[in-house]
Amino acid sequence: MNIPYISAEEVRKNLSMEDAIQCTENVYKLKSQDKTVVWPTIFYEFDPGHADMDIKSGYLPEQHIFGHKTVAFMEANVQKGLPDLVGLIAVFSSETGMPLGLVDGSSVTGMRTGAAGAIGAKYLARKNSRNALIVGTGNQAPFQIAALLKAFPALETIRIANPHNAGHAAAFASKIRAMLQTDFAIEAASVTFEGVSDLQEAVSDSDIIITITPSHTPLIQKEWVKPGTHFSCIGADMAGKEEIDSQIFENAIVFVDDLEHCRDAGEIEIPLKQGTLSEDRICGELGDLILGKAAGRKSDTDITVFDSTGMALLDLAVADFLLKKNR
Amino acid sequence: MNIPYISAEEVRKNLSMEDAIQCTENVYKLKSQDKTVVWPTIFYEFDPGHADMDIKSGYLPEQHIFGHKTVAFMEANVQKGLPDLVGLIAVFSSETGMPLGLVDGSSVTGMRTGAAGAIGAKYLARKNSRNALIVGTGNQAPFQIAALLKAFPALETIRIANPHNAGHAAAFASKIRAMLQTDFAIEAASVTFEGVSDLQEAVSDSDIIITITPSHTPLIQKEWVKPGTHFSCIGADMAGKEEIDSQIFENAIVFVDDLEHCRDAGEIEIPLKQGTLSEDRICGELGDLILGKAAGRKSDTDITVFDSTGMALLDLAVADFLLKKNR
Repeated sequence: MNIPYISAEEVRKNLSMEDAIQCTENVYKLKSQDKTVVWPTIFYEFDPGHADMDIKSGYLPEQHIFGHKTVAFMEANVQKGLPDLVGLIAVFSSETGMPLGLVDGSSVTGMRTGAAGAIGAKYLARKNSRNALIVGTGNQAPFQIAALLKAFPALETIRIANPHNAGHAAAFASKIRAMLQTDFAIEAASVTFEGVSDLQEAVSDSDIIITITPSHTPLIQKEWVKPGTHFSCIGADMAGKEEIDSQIFENAIVFVDDLEHCRDAGEIEIPLKQGTLSEDRICGELGDLILGKAAGRKSDTDITVFDSTGMALLDLAVADFLLKKNR
Repeated sequence: MNIPYISAEEVRKNLSMEDAIQCTENVYKLKSQDKTVVWPTIFYEFDPGHADMDIKSGYLPEQHIFGHKTVAFMEANVQKGLPDLVGLIAVFSSETGMPLGLVDGSSVTGMRTGAAGAIGAKYLARKNSRNALIVGTGNQAPFQIAALLKAFPALETIRIANPHNAGHAAAFASKIRAMLQTDFAIEAASVTFEGVSDLQEAVSDSDIIITITPSHTPLIQKEWVKPGTHFSCIGADMAGKEEIDSQIFENAIVFVDDLEHCRDAGEIEIPLKQGTLSEDRICGELGDLILGKAAGRKSDTDITVFDSTGMALLDLAVADFLLKKNR
């Protein structure tokens, strides 16, 4: 017997962004129906801030699979010519316990994280959104843009901001069109990509804002935000991280991917602790909205926020999809 | 890139019992020197008593590896022609986070569990032991016998008991010599193998007793035991399991593989709760004895007990050994 393995390169070849979005939406729906089981995360720091690993695991009863994703962050890898974030997803049959296969973890993480940001916008942003802003120019940014273009093909402008270095943003904006073509087979001929030099100005002209930074201090102030804006806050995945002004939550319509995780580690963590957001004001998990169990945006002037910290179940579902396709 | 995978068949071909014993002893020594890290076990019951899984994980800093073993027990597998216990070990580099390889879990578990029973005897039983008794005729029993013969090549008699079915014991005894030859390349020409019909009689004539059953009630009474006997209690790996009379612990010299796990799930669990054994009377972990940090048997009349519940670190160490050999 051998165990199928799908490498990062094969993930790129075989997983379209449409597939990633569909798998992700499906897990959100299953979660809302209590058809998912998440087990405790194992986290260990080999060298705090520089080298750590986590093992996230769970079970999808309807798919008859369980499994885990093991992810290591190794800062020193970059000097060795290796990615600093490496991961492996293992999928097992919950009927026989047999391993069904292994899938590279970091490529799948990128795809399902991109999907999450876009799905938040798809269900919460105004349908007539034209201008989007991506805050963050790291590895995850192209995935966010690719997914957003799938959900909003009529977007006219996508601005890209790097709050610490406008030069990085300009460089990213100049190459993203080619990246979309090469990595995602997405033609974005009608979209204007712009590097942001004035974040406040860009925020005030954006219908959709996706934040995907490791920031620990808010980058976007409430006063800059125009009525009707949607936020997908993707970067915060650890206690203490915060990307947008907690005041934004005061009157916003707020959804999360996983209430328990977001409460501890998401964008809502600090607003909840500060009291600018109370838990009873959170409208629900996104699956509740997708299934029509919770109400979302009520008017074109509402501010909406989707807070996503990510779930290993998404990785499992996407890996399972790839393994089945591969058979 | 591909990830090396070592199947059950390749484990059988490439892992000698000597290697398993050496890897296991080495982990015991590392543990005694605080050079091991164990992470919490994830345990989930799909169908209590019939289908469950666990993920055990840990880190061996000196070996620069971390990883996990995922094991599923699926009772219904037998009807499907599959083993009821299936497992997969994944080993990662703690320097780069990259997966180093995968190894079939159940074959490695058998080898390192056999090694554990024999190492307990090697360090605690009388050197001049001649007669051994194996209680239990399940999948794990041949591994215990193979390992014991490595540690005590001068054994004259190995008796095999099945406390519920003497016929099973006789059948097992008649085929074990051939199994040792086929599966472990062990010639045991000078050893007599006997199925036990009277457990009390067999116990009273044994120098070394290894228990490897899933029993929840003691199978061996204190009155049956002759002075100088050594016990390796391997079967108990879950709260409530018990193989030998808790009175045996009253005056015994007791070692464990992992104090924390044995306290919760090992053979000592019930004696500790009943008070027939107090924790300060436990001499230490076996690594302490191997390294000379704790004293073991003092005379030929001492009763000694080694309680082993097993550790995922053993699986990791053996898997790492196989993966290195395979490179």
